[in-house]
Amino acid sequence: MCGIVGYIGEKQAAPILLDGLSKLEYRGYDSAGIAVNNQGEIQIRKSTGRLKVLSELTHDGAEMPGTMGIGHTRWATHGAPTDLNAHPHQNTDGSIVVVHNGIIENYIKLKQKLLTKGYQFASDTDTEVVAHLLDYYYSGDPMEAITKVMDRVDGSYALGIMFRDFPERFFAMRKDSPLIVGKGKDGNLIASDVPAILKYTRDVFYIQNEEIAVLKKDKITFFNIDQEEIEKEMHTVEWDVNAAEKGGYEHFMLKEMYEQPKAVRDTLEPRLSNGKVVIEELGMTDEEIRSINNIHIVACGSASYTGMCAKYIFEEMARIPAFVDVASEFRYRNPILRKGDLVIIISQSGETADSLAALREAKEKGAMTLAIVNVVGSSIAREADKVIYTWAGPEIAVATTKAFSTQLMAEYLLAIKFAEVRGTVSEEEVDDMIQDLKRLPDQIQMLLANRNHIQKFANRYIAARDVFFIGRGLDYALSMEGALKLKEISYIHAEAYAAGELKHGTISLVEDGTLVVAVLTQEALFKKTISNIQEVKSRGAFAMAVTVEGNTEIEKTADYVIYIPETNKYFTSSLALIPLQLFAYYVAVARGCDVDKPKNLAKSVTVE
Amino acid sequence: MCGIVGYIGEKQAAPILLDGLSKLEYRGYDSAGIAVNNQGEIQIRKSTGRLKVLSELTHDGAEMPGTMGIGHTRWATHGAPTDLNAHPHQNTDGSIVVVHNGIIENYIKLKQKLLTKGYQFASDTDTEVVAHLLDYYYSGDPMEAITKVMDRVDGSYALGIMFRDFPERFFAMRKDSPLIVGKGKDGNLIASDVPAILKYTRDVFYIQNEEIAVLKKDKITFFNIDQEEIEKEMHTVEWDVNAAEKGGYEHFMLKEMYEQPKAVRDTLEPRLSNGKVVIEELGMTDEEIRSINNIHIVACGSASYTGMCAKYIFEEMARIPAFVDVASEFRYRNPILRKGDLVIIISQSGETADSLAALREAKEKGAMTLAIVNVVGSSIAREADKVIYTWAGPEIAVATTKAFSTQLMAEYLLAIKFAEVRGTVSEEEVDDMIQDLKRLPDQIQMLLANRNHIQKFANRYIAARDVFFIGRGLDYALSMEGALKLKEISYIHAEAYAAGELKHGTISLVEDGTLVVAVLTQEALFKKTISNIQEVKSRGAFAMAVTVEGNTEIEKTADYVIYIPETNKYFTSSLALIPLQLFAYYVAVARGCDVDKPKNLAKSVTVE
Repeated sequence: MCGIVGYIGEKQAAPILLDGLSKLEYRGYDSAGIAVNNQGEIQIRKSTGRLKVLSELTHDGAEMPGTMGIGHTRWATHGAPTDLNAHPHQNTDGSIVVVHNGIIENYIKLKQKLLTKGYQFASDTDTEVVAHLLDYYYSGDPMEAITKVMDRVDGSYALGIMFRDFPERFFAMRKDSPLIVGKGKDGNLIASDVPAILKYTRDVFYIQNEEIAVLKKDKITFFNIDQEEIEKEMHTVEWDVNAAEKGGYEHFMLKEMYEQPKAVRDTLEPRLSNGKVVIEELGMTDEEIRSINNIHIVACGSASYTGMCAKYIFEEMARIPAFVDVASEFRYRNPILRKGDLVIIISQSGETADSLAALREAKEKGAMTLAIVNVVGSSIAREADKVIYTWAGPEIAVATTKAFSTQLMAEYLLAIKFAEVRGTVSEEEVDDMIQDLKRLPDQIQMLLANRNHIQKFANRYIAARDVFFIGRGLDYALSMEGALKLKEISYIHAEAYAAGELKHGTISLVEDGTLVVAVLTQEALFKKTISNIQEVKSRGAFAMAVTVEGNTEIEKTADYVIYIPETNKYFTSSLALIPLQLFAYYVAVARGCDVDKPKNLAKSVTVE
Repeated sequence: MCGIVGYIGEKQAAPILLDGLSKLEYRGYDSAGIAVNNQGEIQIRKSTGRLKVLSELTHDGAEMPGTMGIGHTRWATHGAPTDLNAHPHQNTDGSIVVVHNGIIENYIKLKQKLLTKGYQFASDTDTEVVAHLLDYYYSGDPMEAITKVMDRVDGSYALGIMFRDFPERFFAMRKDSPLIVGKGKDGNLIASDVPAILKYTRDVFYIQNEEIAVLKKDKITFFNIDQEEIEKEMHTVEWDVNAAEKGGYEHFMLKEMYEQPKAVRDTLEPRLSNGKVVIEELGMTDEEIRSINNIHIVACGSASYTGMCAKYIFEEMARIPAFVDVASEFRYRNPILRKGDLVIIISQSGETADSLAALREAKEKGAMTLAIVNVVGSSIAREADKVIYTWAGPEIAVATTKAFSTQLMAEYLLAIKFAEVRGTVSEEEVDDMIQDLKRLPDQIQMLLANRNHIQKFANRYIAARDVFFIGRGLDYALSMEGALKLKEISYIHAEAYAAGELKHGTISLVEDGTLVVAVLTQEALFKKTISNIQEVKSRGAFAMAVTVEGNTEIEKTADYVIYIPETNKYFTSSLALIPLQLFAYYVAVARGCDVDKPKNLAKSVTVE
């Protein structure tokens, strides 16, 4: 996921491009760049890091004169987030410049062809292929080269293209990636999404697949792939600016919760091949997998709770002893690591300071290290021996939702892979589990659709001071996440407890009306946890239960029950998670909290 | 520690004995028994379990006619808490009956002598020796036999003795164990402590070492060991009944906190021999110790927090990987245990249901098991392969204090033993550590003496709703105990966090004036935790720090500092614990909470 912008008009382009990119940062933020064509002279500036680095580099664009330009903010998929891999990309003599959102699927084949023709590549990106291919086909007519390139490339793209020789126009086209064209008073624009242009105009054209737009400062013309001019209807955008960035959702957190079915599917599907789990980037041999003696899972915050879920699954499914450590503790306690110990580091950003230090500590002690990260090319991804990516896309809300869901999925896949290689599950069991995994995205969708019920229930707990979450085994791990979600965004003091442990002290906090949320998805433990619900109820608690369809027995004890659909016992956390997220979200909304940016918290904790 | 009572007078003796014992239950409660001499016919009833079992058995004493009797409530030291080992004990023909508090140190020698004389023993106790020895020396004159026995026995005793042939009097004497005599309107009494008799009289005689009292229903006479009658002064007890049971302390919890120096010393000293750690009852060979591969520590509540402390020490000092599990989780998660895995179960009562089940699970899986328990002969002590006792004596307050301290001590001793055998510490290091251990009781005493300062500080937090405890490593483990102590008795929602983890969510709960208690006893981590204190302070928190003498740097950051004296880095928890206990106690007192019996909680959790 990336974002592109372009501008041509009366004003200086660079500040407008930077401003537009800032509205697209939710689409990715590992590097950014802009190119300006100043009357036949093209200047490019780009940098890794958040957009503000680029803004500082160019003094908010003031350093780059010229009234036409294109820009890009990146979320790495092909090639690490380095300066060289940042967009825009150009041909060898710098006369053609390209920004690109999407994936050119046949870029390796095209690259090989260009290499044989003598082209040299400065980056690892698929996008650079487009720049050189344009050069290859260009002989004075931009449209001729562009349509030939469109014929040759497979995959998805939204492209912004400038030719040095044509300083009064630039080109844009798309296929399967979003792109809009805006018609403004002082100039015309392109962008991946509406928010980037709302400040300048509300008049837009929606570009369809394989359509081409040619933008001049006072004119926009459209063509099909046969270079025939076409008429397009202009639309007026009614959205308000804030809602626009969030795709119509009230908050990024809600938007990201709704992106979970896609994120989970994106993390799952590329790893299924002929009914087997294949994790290409992992690069572990069966020999290496068989020689694992212990697994140490190290992470911070929510990531450590997915690690706790994984612990149960690694132990039970693959029969490998697994231990979870908080990274800030692991790094300083001189951990004992021995031959055959695998250390798994989990981090959305891949830059969490304590997790990175823990990774280095583990490597120093000679353990094999494996990273589960969301951001390609991040420090943790680069430094770990092995890596699995969670394809969640950028997460903007401070409280994690879709990253959590994809971490769970990555862990399921890893556990199945390990169990298969070590022979602790049968082929039939693997088949069944894969079928269940495939059903998860739709099941998550279904649970999200139930949000109104949970909102109504949440509204009753606006004034709660203390909420307890209880569960056993996997459900205890998930309770930790349920409690953290509630406390980080609603500022209600929530705490999770192993259901059997409550009576060793904490139950003294339960009083009349205290909400206790019980998670019961493990059939073997239903009765035990029901007893614990009875204990808190007899002290006056109101009990909300999240359980699996069919466990209607619970209605005799719990006051409010949410059912999740049936799935394999190892995967229930992915479903029970959804009502807990929705509950935390709606309580926080009703309390008027700043859901996306809770006080005191930062998205990616790069300090100790 | 046991309790004895005796009565002779106008009324039925048994109900008075049971009532008296009920006031002494704080001195032990693993079994109880009474004997009544009904005009030359002696009837004995005894039973394991709390006193109420005996009360039910005798219909509150109604079933036992007679106006003279003696009674006992037991805390096992020699011999498991069985019916047979319960007091009273008798000679072979049942004509002499004895209750005893104390330890006959030369009982083995005496027993061997009696065995050669043809005496048979029904129990494993030291006390039964006294009954047979009386029989051996008895030839019609009780005083003659009693003084001879007093000449022969070493150790400590408070004894109540009845002879069948003398239904109108009974005898009492003491050495180094407490005993009082009460002169009542309707009869006379003996007891280990004042509360047992307060209902009947406030006129008492304090028996000195090696003095003998002879009680008749209307007369009490006193003798020295030479059978010469002596005069004793009568005193009037001014205590109120409640305070009396608590030895003048306002609550059992405070009393037990003040018993910590003794309890810790009692747990330490018998295990030191020629500058080495020798744990006699442990019975592990050096070979067994060397072959330990992993340690799994399993416990509930506070005991699991001492286990977390132990984890760090086993790993760092003995270089054995150690893992802590909550018992209710361990037993149901099908834990993977392998050759060389040692499972350590920690429990004050030795009857904690989940811990007992976890022990059985571990044994079933073939692991070696070791119990750290306070109650001799409890289920966990009996069933574990190996055992270490914590000599804390009976703990009455629901919130543990002295049991916690002695568990820590037992773990230190175990770690040193393991480290010594495995060669991970030098002789000099062991010497130094033992010196530091010996200093701990006095250091604890000194910290307790500081209670007024902490009380003043605690009074400021009566109205607190949320308190956070933070620390790293060992200090994190202790923070868990600090938080639990506060929440279980004051009902303030306290929560402990690894100091580095707070910023991954929970810090959003910190607001202006929130109290954050930081524990910093590990020099290597001072700076890291100070940064975390700064983080919470910049969000408005008030920071109280517990740190070691010399770390004055902290005063630049923390608002209130409590220093603990210097000791080995592994043992700081024993000292930092004391101010946390005092703080929790005084907050609860100021809030008017029922400190000894917090709502919803039970002392020993024998259900799941």
